[in-house]
Amino acid sequence: MKPDAGRTFAVEPWVVREPTLDIAAMGQTESVFALSNGHIGLRGNLDEGDPHHLPGTYLNSFYEVRPLPYAEGGYGYPESGQTIINVTNGKLIRLLVDDEPFDLRYGKLRRHERVLDLRAGTLSREVEWESPAGRVVRVRSIRLVSLTQRAIAAICYEVEVLDEAALLVVQSELVANEQLPARGADDPRLEAALTNALISEMHRADEAGATLVHSTRKSGLRVAAAMDHEVHGPEGIKITSDATEDAGSTTIIGRVKPGETLKVVKYLSYGWSSQRSLPAVYDQVRAALAAARYTGWDGLLREQADYLEDFWETADVEIDGDAELQQAVRLATFHVLQAGARAERRCISAKGLTADGYDGHTFWDTETFCLQVLSFLAPDAAADALRWRQSILPQAFDRAQQLGLDGAAYPWRTIRGEECSGYWPAGTAAFHINADIADAVRRHVAATGDTNFELEVGLEILVATARLWRSLGHHDSAGEFRIDGVTGPDEYSAIVDNNVYTNLMAQLNLRYAAEVAAKHPRSAAKLGVNSEEMASWRDAAASMRIPYDDELRVHPQSEGFTKHKIWDFENTPADTYPLLLHYPYFDLYRKQVIKQADLVLAMQLRPDAFTPEQMRRNFAYYEAITVRDSSLSACTQSMVAARTGHLDLAYDYLAEAALIDLNNLAGNTDHGMHIASMAGTWVAITTGLGGMTCDATGLAFAPVLPAALTRISFGLRWQGRHIRVTITPDEVEYRLVSGPPMRLRHHGEPVALAEDPQVRPLPSQHHVDPVEQPYGRAPRQRHHGS
Amino acid sequence: MKPDAGRTFAVEPWVVREPTLDIAAMGQTESVFALSNGHIGLRGNLDEGDPHHLPGTYLNSFYEVRPLPYAEGGYGYPESGQTIINVTNGKLIRLLVDDEPFDLRYGKLRRHERVLDLRAGTLSREVEWESPAGRVVRVRSIRLVSLTQRAIAAICYEVEVLDEAALLVVQSELVANEQLPARGADDPRLEAALTNALISEMHRADEAGATLVHSTRKSGLRVAAAMDHEVHGPEGIKITSDATEDAGSTTIIGRVKPGETLKVVKYLSYGWSSQRSLPAVYDQVRAALAAARYTGWDGLLREQADYLEDFWETADVEIDGDAELQQAVRLATFHVLQAGARAERRCISAKGLTADGYDGHTFWDTETFCLQVLSFLAPDAAADALRWRQSILPQAFDRAQQLGLDGAAYPWRTIRGEECSGYWPAGTAAFHINADIADAVRRHVAATGDTNFELEVGLEILVATARLWRSLGHHDSAGEFRIDGVTGPDEYSAIVDNNVYTNLMAQLNLRYAAEVAAKHPRSAAKLGVNSEEMASWRDAAASMRIPYDDELRVHPQSEGFTKHKIWDFENTPADTYPLLLHYPYFDLYRKQVIKQADLVLAMQLRPDAFTPEQMRRNFAYYEAITVRDSSLSACTQSMVAARTGHLDLAYDYLAEAALIDLNNLAGNTDHGMHIASMAGTWVAITTGLGGMTCDATGLAFAPVLPAALTRISFGLRWQGRHIRVTITPDEVEYRLVSGPPMRLRHHGEPVALAEDPQVRPLPSQHHVDPVEQPYGRAPRQRHHGS
Repeated sequence: MKPDAGRTFAVEPWVVREPTLDIAAMGQTESVFALSNGHIGLRGNLDEGDPHHLPGTYLNSFYEVRPLPYAEGGYGYPESGQTIINVTNGKLIRLLVDDEPFDLRYGKLRRHERVLDLRAGTLSREVEWESPAGRVVRVRSIRLVSLTQRAIAAICYEVEVLDEAALLVVQSELVANEQLPARGADDPRLEAALTNALISEMHRADEAGATLVHSTRKSGLRVAAAMDHEVHGPEGIKITSDATEDAGSTTIIGRVKPGETLKVVKYLSYGWSSQRSLPAVYDQVRAALAAARYTGWDGLLREQADYLEDFWETADVEIDGDAELQQAVRLATFHVLQAGARAERRCISAKGLTADGYDGHTFWDTETFCLQVLSFLAPDAAADALRWRQSILPQAFDRAQQLGLDGAAYPWRTIRGEECSGYWPAGTAAFHINADIADAVRRHVAATGDTNFELEVGLEILVATARLWRSLGHHDSAGEFRIDGVTGPDEYSAIVDNNVYTNLMAQLNLRYAAEVAAKHPRSAAKLGVNSEEMASWRDAAASMRIPYDDELRVHPQSEGFTKHKIWDFENTPADTYPLLLHYPYFDLYRKQVIKQADLVLAMQLRPDAFTPEQMRRNFAYYEAITVRDSSLSACTQSMVAARTGHLDLAYDYLAEAALIDLNNLAGNTDHGMHIASMAGTWVAITTGLGGMTCDATGLAFAPVLPAALTRISFGLRWQGRHIRVTITPDEVEYRLVSGPPMRLRHHGEPVALAEDPQVRPLPSQHHVDPVEQPYGRAPRQRHHGS
Repeated sequence: MKPDAGRTFAVEPWVVREPTLDIAAMGQTESVFALSNGHIGLRGNLDEGDPHHLPGTYLNSFYEVRPLPYAEGGYGYPESGQTIINVTNGKLIRLLVDDEPFDLRYGKLRRHERVLDLRAGTLSREVEWESPAGRVVRVRSIRLVSLTQRAIAAICYEVEVLDEAALLVVQSELVANEQLPARGADDPRLEAALTNALISEMHRADEAGATLVHSTRKSGLRVAAAMDHEVHGPEGIKITSDATEDAGSTTIIGRVKPGETLKVVKYLSYGWSSQRSLPAVYDQVRAALAAARYTGWDGLLREQADYLEDFWETADVEIDGDAELQQAVRLATFHVLQAGARAERRCISAKGLTADGYDGHTFWDTETFCLQVLSFLAPDAAADALRWRQSILPQAFDRAQQLGLDGAAYPWRTIRGEECSGYWPAGTAAFHINADIADAVRRHVAATGDTNFELEVGLEILVATARLWRSLGHHDSAGEFRIDGVTGPDEYSAIVDNNVYTNLMAQLNLRYAAEVAAKHPRSAAKLGVNSEEMASWRDAAASMRIPYDDELRVHPQSEGFTKHKIWDFENTPADTYPLLLHYPYFDLYRKQVIKQADLVLAMQLRPDAFTPEQMRRNFAYYEAITVRDSSLSACTQSMVAARTGHLDLAYDYLAEAALIDLNNLAGNTDHGMHIASMAGTWVAITTGLGGMTCDATGLAFAPVLPAALTRISFGLRWQGRHIRVTITPDEVEYRLVSGPPMRLRHHGEPVALAEDPQVRPLPSQHHVDPVEQPYGRAPRQRHHGS
């Protein structure tokens, strides 16, 4: 995709720069510029708050409960949902210049630049503004959400007077219950539940700061936000602070002469809990604040840069031949890190902490997309995400019981573990999430070699999910194990029998659970697992029904799927995509039209279950009916395109996945970053172009390179090692950056890797017949090289 | 089912008598005693209003609009629904005896009897009551809703003083916006929409009466209610009337001596419209009232009795050998008549006008159950019901278009034609309603021979529904015509492929539409039908896919159904029925458990599509998994049991269908009468025990008689004739009561029927292997005779 003339961001390798303010794109820039450590998230709002698209300050798992209404209710429908809420906004710094508020919509904006620096981990801004009365100031701010001190964010805010002396008033604030833009929600009760969601419990002003403590009405959570300031500037600066129930404010006043600078460092700390007392939460934020002040602004900056330097050493993907893609891949990796880095046994939601899209819920995106990255780049974060899944097992046991099933039924969407899906055919019925979680455990253990984790975290999850599958499916009279009436990944089908993806993933889940239980018999016995039960899992896995259409010689996505009518793509206007907004589910469900990779995802995650010929035929078949109305699709299509020899197509899909937010391809980046697509970008590169697979037998690669690219280099951690793989048109180099010698496979051939890099030739590509997408739905073609 | 000791009603052939007041059963008695002519419905509330379970005064299609909320919305979901509302209550007559209100909960109730007389068409009541102060009065009231004057109801109210003279005050009222019992609705907006739904437009008192005119907030309907009174009694009676916005009241005061009687005849008239002006509606009710007064009370009684005498002459079913069933069958027939008699191009709803269950909506119940009765007993009412379907074609065309389909998509539930279903898998997806309507047209034309109706009403409906099916299904690569992703009658399955019931009914629809269009080519051409289109219908019908399980040798209810896990009936506690209140849909949908006859209904309506052997095997298979959680099931199971030789079982199911409300078998008769089960009772007798079928080739019978019964006699109209069929253990008599000679078939043999009755032997019954029901779900066994 060529950069548009009117594109919002400049193409640069390590930063995302907005050279001039684009108010129309503010919804997008607020998301792209969101800073987060997985614990705290600050949308990229302007320091002064206005103008904005959506103000956003989020804390992981800080939500309110809201009713879920139904025109016709049913047994087991969740009565209430959880919605992430905008908490006390601490990033607000307002400025008065000789009594005129610094507001970009008034006066004259001479210059406005924002830069997200992916190595520094900061969002910086530089503005030159002439007030309506003619005073000219330069404002520089740098904002960070600390990756090292998880409760802390900080802002360095500098104002320089350029022409004449001016009286500057900097008002640094904490604001709770901010007014949010109306969303046109059709349910007034939803608005009611989420407007003024925070009830003041305490407010206190200090000399140069303030603290506010609030709690929620229904979800029973308490949040404390505190700020403190360091001020540097000319003599005579006056600092006062005060606090009311919903607002804390520190006011810094001083007369500043041309060339002088007023510099304010704002330290911001958040603490929240469902259990801790008011004094405990209060003390917690004050202590965190003290530690941050002790570290100091420069210290925080340095820690941030060090953390990221360490991260990028392994995580960086170098792409030669496509500067736009290079930038996008780094931004993608950065946002995946931001979503998960310090989530620490809380959830990783579909939008990270970049906005409140999808109510801030976590889906299967976490395991199937994010953890495919984090297990290889930030394994501690991946481990914590899975520990969170372990921690919500009680809710998943309850849900299974309510549904008449054994084991655990993980929620399709949730913040704290309770099912929050209000449309069960595309929610509760999507049981595959349970196998997705089990597979993430398997992959994590393979990647890290952490057998302790396997025992302490993995076993319980695996047993609980295996039991679910065993009770969800049944052996039919011919002995085949069927899983009927569930929904696979593709949301344009629902409540189907023997979805191939689901059945293959359940098969893996059952097998792996039996294997791990057999490895840890004593611990398994404590969970009530005996050899009979393990045998029943292995038996179900071995008898798993995988439907196959002998006539078409493809796998139907689910039983009977290939008999359905094919969607009339040619008479589907371009502006009726995404289809779900213009056609009823009933019509989508009964036809061959695919929202997102389903059978194709099965081929990515279970390549062992398909012959190369099946993979090619299936890919061609499903390409022709997949419309990619979901952002979870392009990355998977890229991977399988790469594996089936469609390298240019793999490249096009890769770019679509990577650029979805940078170029706002789905038009909804204002709802938050597409974290799964960001993660899928890395996965498409490593498992698609890199051909990476991993299981208990080890790590394997089968690299290929699209003609347009001259070099791709990516790194990963593998069982305590750092490895780097560099693909050039003719060969690939495997390098062990650190760690003990190991073995891997290159296109099936064993490679022993020690201190010396190993270079292997790339196999020549055979011609493959091109595949087609539905009318009008081909990915945008990039320049495919000579 | 033996009468319980504590049963509410006495067993008598022609009346339903409640010998003493049973306050606990009031919800049931209000429904059973409801009077209606299909235009106006009055629940069997006490004259004085209190105590009550649910006050109810309904006018056909008088509804308010209410929002339909969704936790997760979707394209094409109806945003608002229609709910029948309780209108101005005109049946209220309050009494003061020496200043003490006549309230059965106080003082001493010496006697209380109510009688619904099925030949008189009246609800009468006789009370002897001693007031707390010791005055004894006898109150007699007779109420009717006129079958001859459709806007009219009337009450004759008499008070006799038994011991000492007393001052009697009779307050006869019209009350709008009555306070209704709280229903525990979980949606406050629903309550808001339906509380005080009527806005006063006019109120006026006359000398001995009053008129109130109201309109609704959102549905834009106007209703006028008017009353007038005749008073007879001792000298010195004083009559005054007054009216306020929501109340009209006529007060009759007089001192009455022992042995004297104060008699008040109340005439009540209703008029409503979505279009007519206030003066027009006002004049309409006053004119109707004048006509009723002109007829007089005795005249109204006489007209009512004459109307019913004429009806019963054909409609009566005589059953010897089971007095309870005899009564139940008559009550059932009476309520079907009440629901449809004067509906006159408005809908016939699932509960008739006996309560507001199901929001007063009309479903497929009308065509598949009620019209099977009305086409043979009250053909004008049946024709009007189908004319109503024709009148809502514009809404059905719109809905089809919204769903991306051709032709008409009739709403699953509605009052005025718009889809009001808030759960599409069990609503919109149940497309079979379209074929059910087409089949009702076919049956009606066969029964009446009314080719004019076929042309003027039938053709348009048939073309619209055939086009729907043609666009809903498709020919697969093997040429079979498939209908995927729809829901059949059984609501414990949804969104399935090739539901046999749906496909067989669609096949009939397509075939019949082609046939009728070919018969009326010019009219068809005006609807745009050409011979190509007709050919495409015939082709689709001829290629219709009817799945069959070769291994089990039964028809699966839908594609793959017989592969599903069978519900664990043995571990399903009795108190978890109906299952939908205790198990999630997801679990019900994916297992073999059937709420209501589906494949079995297909065998009733399309016996031509099954061999006798298939019918027997299918019936046995589906009996074992059908739990009858729907009241639409027992009657159908009775029919097919009779046809497959399970005569005792047919008898048990027949009794269950007939007694559902009289014995409150489903426990929800307070929500209204189960009109479809009432209708199904007659259908089970005629098509089940009578073996009646009818098509263009004529009328056929194949009678059988359960051992417990010594005689069944039923009548019907057939193309202008009256016929009576009388089955005794050894033979059957066919009698042409009136009309020209005809031919019919008896167990396949032709019979020429003219003036002389024809007697034919009943074939001897072969032994059939017993069938089994799910654990605990066998119907209650009646005494099966020797």
